[in-house]
Amino acid sequence: MSVTFAQGFEASGVACGLKSSGNKDLAVVVNRGPLKLAAAVFTTNRCQANPILWSKEVIKDQIVEAIVLNSGGANCYTGPEGFQNTHATAEELAKQLGIAAGDVLVCSTGLIGEQLDRNKLIQGVSSAVATLAVSGGVAASEAIMTTDSVAKRAEAESGSGWRIGGMAKGAGMLAPGLATMLVVITTDAIVDKQFLDSALRSATRVSFDRLDSDGCMSTNDQVTLMASGASGVRADEGEFVALLTQVCKELALKLLDDAEGASHNIHITVSGAASEDDAVEVARSVARNNLFKAAIYGNDPNWGRILAAVGTTKAVFDPYNIDVAINGVLISSQGQPAGDRSQIDLTPRKVEIGINLNSGGHQATVVTNDLTHAYVEENSAYSS
Amino acid sequence: MSVTFAQGFEASGVACGLKSSGNKDLAVVVNRGPLKLAAAVFTTNRCQANPILWSKEVIKDQIVEAIVLNSGGANCYTGPEGFQNTHATAEELAKQLGIAAGDVLVCSTGLIGEQLDRNKLIQGVSSAVATLAVSGGVAASEAIMTTDSVAKRAEAESGSGWRIGGMAKGAGMLAPGLATMLVVITTDAIVDKQFLDSALRSATRVSFDRLDSDGCMSTNDQVTLMASGASGVRADEGEFVALLTQVCKELALKLLDDAEGASHNIHITVSGAASEDDAVEVARSVARNNLFKAAIYGNDPNWGRILAAVGTTKAVFDPYNIDVAINGVLISSQGQPAGDRSQIDLTPRKVEIGINLNSGGHQATVVTNDLTHAYVEENSAYSS
Repeated sequence: MSVTFAQGFEASGVACGLKSSGNKDLAVVVNRGPLKLAAAVFTTNRCQANPILWSKEVIKDQIVEAIVLNSGGANCYTGPEGFQNTHATAEELAKQLGIAAGDVLVCSTGLIGEQLDRNKLIQGVSSAVATLAVSGGVAASEAIMTTDSVAKRAEAESGSGWRIGGMAKGAGMLAPGLATMLVVITTDAIVDKQFLDSALRSATRVSFDRLDSDGCMSTNDQVTLMASGASGVRADEGEFVALLTQVCKELALKLLDDAEGASHNIHITVSGAASEDDAVEVARSVARNNLFKAAIYGNDPNWGRILAAVGTTKAVFDPYNIDVAINGVLISSQGQPAGDRSQIDLTPRKVEIGINLNSGGHQATVVTNDLTHAYVEENSAYSS
Repeated sequence: MSVTFAQGFEASGVACGLKSSGNKDLAVVVNRGPLKLAAAVFTTNRCQANPILWSKEVIKDQIVEAIVLNSGGANCYTGPEGFQNTHATAEELAKQLGIAAGDVLVCSTGLIGEQLDRNKLIQGVSSAVATLAVSGGVAASEAIMTTDSVAKRAEAESGSGWRIGGMAKGAGMLAPGLATMLVVITTDAIVDKQFLDSALRSATRVSFDRLDSDGCMSTNDQVTLMASGASGVRADEGEFVALLTQVCKELALKLLDDAEGASHNIHITVSGAASEDDAVEVARSVARNNLFKAAIYGNDPNWGRILAAVGTTKAVFDPYNIDVAINGVLISSQGQPAGDRSQIDLTPRKVEIGINLNSGGHQATVVTNDLTHAYVEENSAYSS
């Protein structure tokens, strides 16, 4: 049910010809209120697409009535004409809905440097508005797919009567800075503006921000949370953050599962760290090490490559007092081998790497994929 | 002629059984003087192999009479027994040559976490000493090979009568922090201790330090420069730095040419930078971007991936005023497409990426390789 699982939202997904395949390529999500609040986090990449430049202005007052998302082109590095295309898309949707363009967010995804066809966008917005429905969440989630093999959706429901629903797209270029994919999450809970923003930042920090598929940060990524208040129930703040985090983590893991060409999901947990930042730095360093990632593809428990990656960080640790475990088998400890490589079974898709820095009480988990032939193929055989 | 191109040096390379292939796996280079000076730079990886721990102590007084290098095992994360193996190797070579163990450098390369066979090492040192010769430079360069497909050597000669020669090994895990490979360079020029050290740092900073094949930093890397003074000629300092830099660059490019599985050598030159550090940061960010590297493998001039990598850095620039050229064709400028992708021919092995930040007068070049199926194969199919 995706973004229409929560009450007060309508959505649609249509094909307007931006994708040469003829597949759906434009989605709209409308907040029917009574609240019209939103929060968003954006890519920290300094080279940002036109829809990011636009949406950053729109989100300032946190009043958002609708969001329009297109696949089939990133609208990044397309100059003034590209920005005008984003603007025209928002204007058209505003006109059709009888709202202000300044309350319309825009997201785009696809190849950088290609101009979108404005007529197709305008036509697409018309078709999308004509098909808006409370059953439109699935179609919307399909329309934002690019190299995704499946649409990603998640839902959660509070015992108090409010809901959260979401959709996500992303199958490569998954690395944080924060947002590194297009995500729209909706809720019908009654919440305050400031809390909505802090809840989103809190949830994304430990979900999308801990997903690092290939270390590459996109120019277009945006995670948007819209609140309608339509349940009539004010959410308990602790419960809201918990359920929102659950939905974000579920969507993040679905992105990981569908990462381009991957054959393993690798969960790297660093414990015994002097700080959470240290734990994240060490885990991310391992997650970005091509030699380690290729070894996992080969089902090779090459723990030396893990320690070599750990050693490039500035975290607090004694390099000769680190414990490394792979799938539960302690394989190196105190600067030397500790276990038997042959005890480690790397054939399952899920791989768990445990790194204990023995330097404190903090921990963090970063998830990544292996480096495979299919990754190289998907990212070399055609432009994306 | 490698390390014996300069006068005053003898070398040898032998097979002592560390490599299961039976290929040469132990090299010795001896400085016969009259000077017995050396300088060295080491990996900045905090997880360091036993020979690095040993050599860092030996180099402190810059008096070095010999260096022994083995392939077939990194002697890293092998605990106290591993350190004793390094110590015993130095002791044995010292005994055979009638010198002090404290004047013997040791280098190792191969798989992390495997204990070297001490008896084989001791036997190998004996054989190597027995075959020391001024013609031994080639054999030594062969004995340090691991996954290298060719031995790497370089020479340079001053009109004033002194020489520099060198050998290098390395075919993956090439990333800086500085030294990321095993390199031994010799000279028969007369030079001062302090100058020798500063000359080496100056030369490596713009050669090996600008080589970033796969972003992975090794635990074992060491670049050693030994000076015999045997030419009897005091080197002009400027000329010495120039020729040493030339030899380092030549060896670095040979490492690049032989990088595991690569099909393109990519030279990324960042100009118009506010500082040299900015230029290096931007170039390195592009050099480490898997999506960009895969695109080059596919002969795809995907300039959007270049800008997306540039945008992750903290360098001074206006993201919408960057010029990107690929093999001489300006392809993006002022935040939009500038040229025709079809004009770019990416079939030659050498690829030149030009990035003008339009923010100052500094520039730097980082060299890297593409991300290929063969890279994945070589780094997943067996432990290394």
